[in-house]
Amino acid sequence: MKKHNFYAGPAILPEFTVNNVIEACRDFAGTGLSIMEISHRSKEFTEVMEHAQSLFKELLKIPEGYHVLFVGGGASTQFTVVPMNLMQNKSAYLNTGAWATKAIREAKLYGDVEVVASSEDKNFSYIPKGYKIPDDADYFHITTNNTIYGTEIKEDMDAPVPLVADMSSDILSRPVDVSKYVLIYGGAQKNLAPAGVTFVIVREDVLGNVDRKIPTIFDYRTQIDKGSMFNTPPVLPVYAALQTLIWIKDNGGVEAMQKKNREKSSLLYQEIERNKLFVPTIKNEEDRSVMNVCWVMNEEYAELEKPFLEFATRRGMVGVKGHRSVGGFRASLYNALPLDSVKALIDVMQEFESMKA
Amino acid sequence: MKKHNFYAGPAILPEFTVNNVIEACRDFAGTGLSIMEISHRSKEFTEVMEHAQSLFKELLKIPEGYHVLFVGGGASTQFTVVPMNLMQNKSAYLNTGAWATKAIREAKLYGDVEVVASSEDKNFSYIPKGYKIPDDADYFHITTNNTIYGTEIKEDMDAPVPLVADMSSDILSRPVDVSKYVLIYGGAQKNLAPAGVTFVIVREDVLGNVDRKIPTIFDYRTQIDKGSMFNTPPVLPVYAALQTLIWIKDNGGVEAMQKKNREKSSLLYQEIERNKLFVPTIKNEEDRSVMNVCWVMNEEYAELEKPFLEFATRRGMVGVKGHRSVGGFRASLYNALPLDSVKALIDVMQEFESMKA
Repeated sequence: MKKHNFYAGPAILPEFTVNNVIEACRDFAGTGLSIMEISHRSKEFTEVMEHAQSLFKELLKIPEGYHVLFVGGGASTQFTVVPMNLMQNKSAYLNTGAWATKAIREAKLYGDVEVVASSEDKNFSYIPKGYKIPDDADYFHITTNNTIYGTEIKEDMDAPVPLVADMSSDILSRPVDVSKYVLIYGGAQKNLAPAGVTFVIVREDVLGNVDRKIPTIFDYRTQIDKGSMFNTPPVLPVYAALQTLIWIKDNGGVEAMQKKNREKSSLLYQEIERNKLFVPTIKNEEDRSVMNVCWVMNEEYAELEKPFLEFATRRGMVGVKGHRSVGGFRASLYNALPLDSVKALIDVMQEFESMKA
Repeated sequence: MKKHNFYAGPAILPEFTVNNVIEACRDFAGTGLSIMEISHRSKEFTEVMEHAQSLFKELLKIPEGYHVLFVGGGASTQFTVVPMNLMQNKSAYLNTGAWATKAIREAKLYGDVEVVASSEDKNFSYIPKGYKIPDDADYFHITTNNTIYGTEIKEDMDAPVPLVADMSSDILSRPVDVSKYVLIYGGAQKNLAPAGVTFVIVREDVLGNVDRKIPTIFDYRTQIDKGSMFNTPPVLPVYAALQTLIWIKDNGGVEAMQKKNREKSSLLYQEIERNKLFVPTIKNEEDRSVMNVCWVMNEEYAELEKPFLEFATRRGMVGVKGHRSVGGFRASLYNALPLDSVKALIDVMQEFESMKA
């Protein structure tokens, strides 16, 4: 039976990426060796790293003065590396969920952290608005997409201080005006690659402004100077990232991704609104994530939660259980998820409704 | 033409590992999904992580009270994470090469570092002996195998203070008396897995003895409590590590690996000593690495260095160029390298000798 992969991450990747990684595991670039067994200093892999960096810049129209890094450690490592590099006295954070909360916690080790607003009062089911960003903050940090709750900041904001964004779960899903940010980072395991590589887009001129001594490997300057090769990079995940970047380019770029993602999420939100059994968890349409669509049972059908999950699973829907802190269901609609998977899920929702309601 | 992979790392892996990773990239554990696309919280991957940890403990006979962690970031990240967790006032380091030098540099950010001895005076071509380890050090740090120079500390020493070892390039190549160490760490990309995962073996009772605040992700306690799942682990590299651990067990364990590795390195050192064209870079047999065998041209044949490298490359020998700081040649003989590859290299050395000498 065909499986439809709605996992929140690690998540579905393009078939193009999966197939090319398999081929490279057999024989990488005609070397006669596996991509898993080749030196990162080889000519063949050096080209992969440089190509991935340049294509990332091309797809997101990244301006001059920015660098793209591929490092290990995950976005959770960046929660501490960002303030280590950028925070002299004070930073400001917007708290939109569990990951933002973790980022705030780590920043507090480096100075004064002002949380300008939080949606924790309603289990992070909305994006706060009308907050004031302090002028004296070294930077303002946002989490653009909140995977667990299904909220998203879909527009690039103007901030009075340098803007930093965790884009782990919506990078490359839409065009981004990178010039509005000084730093964008994220784990790759949603829209880009298998788990194990982290991307960082950083504007060079914001570095070197803090007094503390930074461990060499966590100093962005080190990785910029070494082209992300200060230490052995995660070779296979970087190769996979390159394949996904090529696939995005071949399929119309981030503009085409955005169009397709909007179509997928609109169809699914419409069905949730229409279907008698379900209600969306995010009421404000403006705040709804294009990447992660969350919904719960309509109260009068509450006892059908488990039966629906089992029904959907039997029909090949994978990873549609909601996060434990929200409950209900979640379908993640990353770039690589085909429209047909969304249609298959909607069919399952409608079939279940016709049986039960 | 068959390639013989002598890369220093990322390096050759068992065919068993490569083939099983390819299969899991197609369909992981019967899920119908790729190992690259599956949630790390899935039952199937949770089992992989737990199996890898328990097999690591079994193969190295790791005593009670120790934990095995699989994290991202590479050994270079551990250079700063180790002192962060273990160094209250002072630490001691043995300087046996470029990687030890980097580890020393990072430790200095956290307090007083005493370098007990260094072989830098002779380009790290020997292992210092007869040094004194200060009793007041919080720990003593060694690099057991020095990939660049081809030296190795092949016996587990007794130290008067807690012993820490970077075993990036000789882990699982021999039995280790883990009880003599409080912490052993390393990148996986030599004897274990493709680049992207780092192993840490840590004795629980040495943690919690420093005053500084440790970023959550770098506190070993965090990863112990979460079973290496505090954040998304590098899923595919961990799966590959498990395959290699299974392969080691199926092939007689680390005792059998040691026997085979000694046979391979003895054959090659013998040939280097015998062959008129070559001389070994490490004069003291006791200090010679079983993992990385380094040699240079005999002075009177110095002009044949490049021709030999080209000749060997044409015969399918990959990665035998020495590190730029040593010159000459290096053959890395990790667990997965077959004896036949060593014999093929020796054939090439002898054939070249018969042509030129």
